[in-house]
Amino acid sequence: MTTQALSLDEIYQLAFDCLTKAGADQANADAVANTVMRAERDGSASHGLFRIPGYVATLLSGKVNGSADPQPEQVTPAFVRCHGQNGHAPLAINRSVEMLAESALTCGVAVLSLTHSHHFAALWPETEALAMRGLVGFACVSYMPMVAPAGGREALFGTNPISFAWPRPNNTPLVFDMATSAMAMGEVQIAARDGHKVPLGTGLDANGELTDDPREILKGVLLPFGAHKGSAISMMVELMAGPMVGEGFSFEAQEGDNGDGGPPQGGEFILAISPQILGSDNWAEHAEKLFAKLESIDGIRLPGQRRHKMRADLGAREVNSELVEKLQTMS
Amino acid sequence: MTTQALSLDEIYQLAFDCLTKAGADQANADAVANTVMRAERDGSASHGLFRIPGYVATLLSGKVNGSADPQPEQVTPAFVRCHGQNGHAPLAINRSVEMLAESALTCGVAVLSLTHSHHFAALWPETEALAMRGLVGFACVSYMPMVAPAGGREALFGTNPISFAWPRPNNTPLVFDMATSAMAMGEVQIAARDGHKVPLGTGLDANGELTDDPREILKGVLLPFGAHKGSAISMMVELMAGPMVGEGFSFEAQEGDNGDGGPPQGGEFILAISPQILGSDNWAEHAEKLFAKLESIDGIRLPGQRRHKMRADLGAREVNSELVEKLQTMS
Repeated sequence: MTTQALSLDEIYQLAFDCLTKAGADQANADAVANTVMRAERDGSASHGLFRIPGYVATLLSGKVNGSADPQPEQVTPAFVRCHGQNGHAPLAINRSVEMLAESALTCGVAVLSLTHSHHFAALWPETEALAMRGLVGFACVSYMPMVAPAGGREALFGTNPISFAWPRPNNTPLVFDMATSAMAMGEVQIAARDGHKVPLGTGLDANGELTDDPREILKGVLLPFGAHKGSAISMMVELMAGPMVGEGFSFEAQEGDNGDGGPPQGGEFILAISPQILGSDNWAEHAEKLFAKLESIDGIRLPGQRRHKMRADLGAREVNSELVEKLQTMS
Repeated sequence: MTTQALSLDEIYQLAFDCLTKAGADQANADAVANTVMRAERDGSASHGLFRIPGYVATLLSGKVNGSADPQPEQVTPAFVRCHGQNGHAPLAINRSVEMLAESALTCGVAVLSLTHSHHFAALWPETEALAMRGLVGFACVSYMPMVAPAGGREALFGTNPISFAWPRPNNTPLVFDMATSAMAMGEVQIAARDGHKVPLGTGLDANGELTDDPREILKGVLLPFGAHKGSAISMMVELMAGPMVGEGFSFEAQEGDNGDGGPPQGGEFILAISPQILGSDNWAEHAEKLFAKLESIDGIRLPGQRRHKMRADLGAREVNSELVEKLQTMS
């Protein structure tokens, strides 16, 4: 794979230009371009510029509203609702997080229901934003059916990621953000593109047989992580990002989608909880005792640390050259 | 294994008598005996009478207060705290659930923090109690270190179960309740007692090697389900049932425990969310569409269904004879 170095500003600008050229307004293009730049910055290529063709496709097809102007509303002291106006999710999330955080800092717990939105990014931007305000953040979204429930052979669930962030005052938060499939679809796509194999158990081929060839899995179906237990968690995500917030399931997202290759309409469930209100005054230093135990085990890194280490480097990032050339023609 | 038939009343009474003989007052013995009877009724032997020797040990050793009189308090409109007064958890949970449910039915979401409590049961009694009130319930507890984090070989996490219940008006709720270890400790103990093997990947022997012999795993360590992803979820449970609610980690529970064989002191985190407030009016029938899809897959049962089917049978239950004889000497 040939790569080329782009500065973080260049990554942002390339994304921004592609989005505005496709019809997004400044506010929406800025929010998405920032999300994409931060993914590249943190070493998550599968959520970086790699996603721009999908974002652009949804703007060009008219599925996504590039001028969405989402306005969060406080429904109860602990519940914020945001109608995404069929825009990409980042602007709606940015505008809702402060209200959600204020609610949780007052009530101890609060939820955000985001509907009529198109999510195509990682979840750590929203859970980390809560953690930076001293809150535990939890978020989940469903997507398109790509994962067979444990025991099945046909796609029903999305890759249905969940993210959890724990605040660490004066430190970067502890964050995990993971697909409830054995592997994220973006990683399978990148493995297929780069000619790498994937672990057996990642998915089934079109005949329902296990395979380590990501190209065959793209014709077949992914499997949940952790067999029936991971499958139960994926089902929980379908319910929480679906009827819980007044949105659809992955299979309904597909039914309503125009097939432009970009993200379908869907919902997101975000939970914020205050350990300062629920727990003891020493909650933060107390949690560090567990982290110290974990870090003392050979070969174990706390979730999110690799990303935060990369973040500290403000230098250029290596991006797939073919992708950059493609985006330059779109910008 | 020899078994004998006990009616549900006999199961309750045997448990109740053992508990009161060991010093529990009527209210505490009733709450625990009910929890134990309902586990036997639902076919969960590992949470049934099998647990009574452990409950009794904690009363006899004085670790657990058999006269705990826990009083839940409403801290914010969405946050209920209950100090368990060092009793067994069931009485504190029974007394707190209504206040938690009322909070969630008003605010859309609410949390219960239970501290200074000794939890030795399944989690579905509390999540199902919320689902019966039209709420989604989520609960988690930590316990004693028995599970090595993914990549480690020494116990740090408890088996750290999580339970999720989705309300189904005019039907039993959809409920899962599962250890975040590859297998629950009670199931490993029962497999060891009954001479059954367990799947490879369940745990490591004392030398840190994989084994399918449950007796060797009892000398070694369990593994998380789903490798590093399940390990991340188990870590999340340590944080939520620990510093989030002002309680300790599994490794601290062990450090503070007197080794009587019964449950250590710990915390529980319970979340209740109202799909009626967050979602659309048709949330309940909407969710059924997913359940119908799942049930149409050959060999897939909705989580909790086996238990609810057994529950409908009010007849006698087969219980290990050796256990019954042992309990009769304790009652």
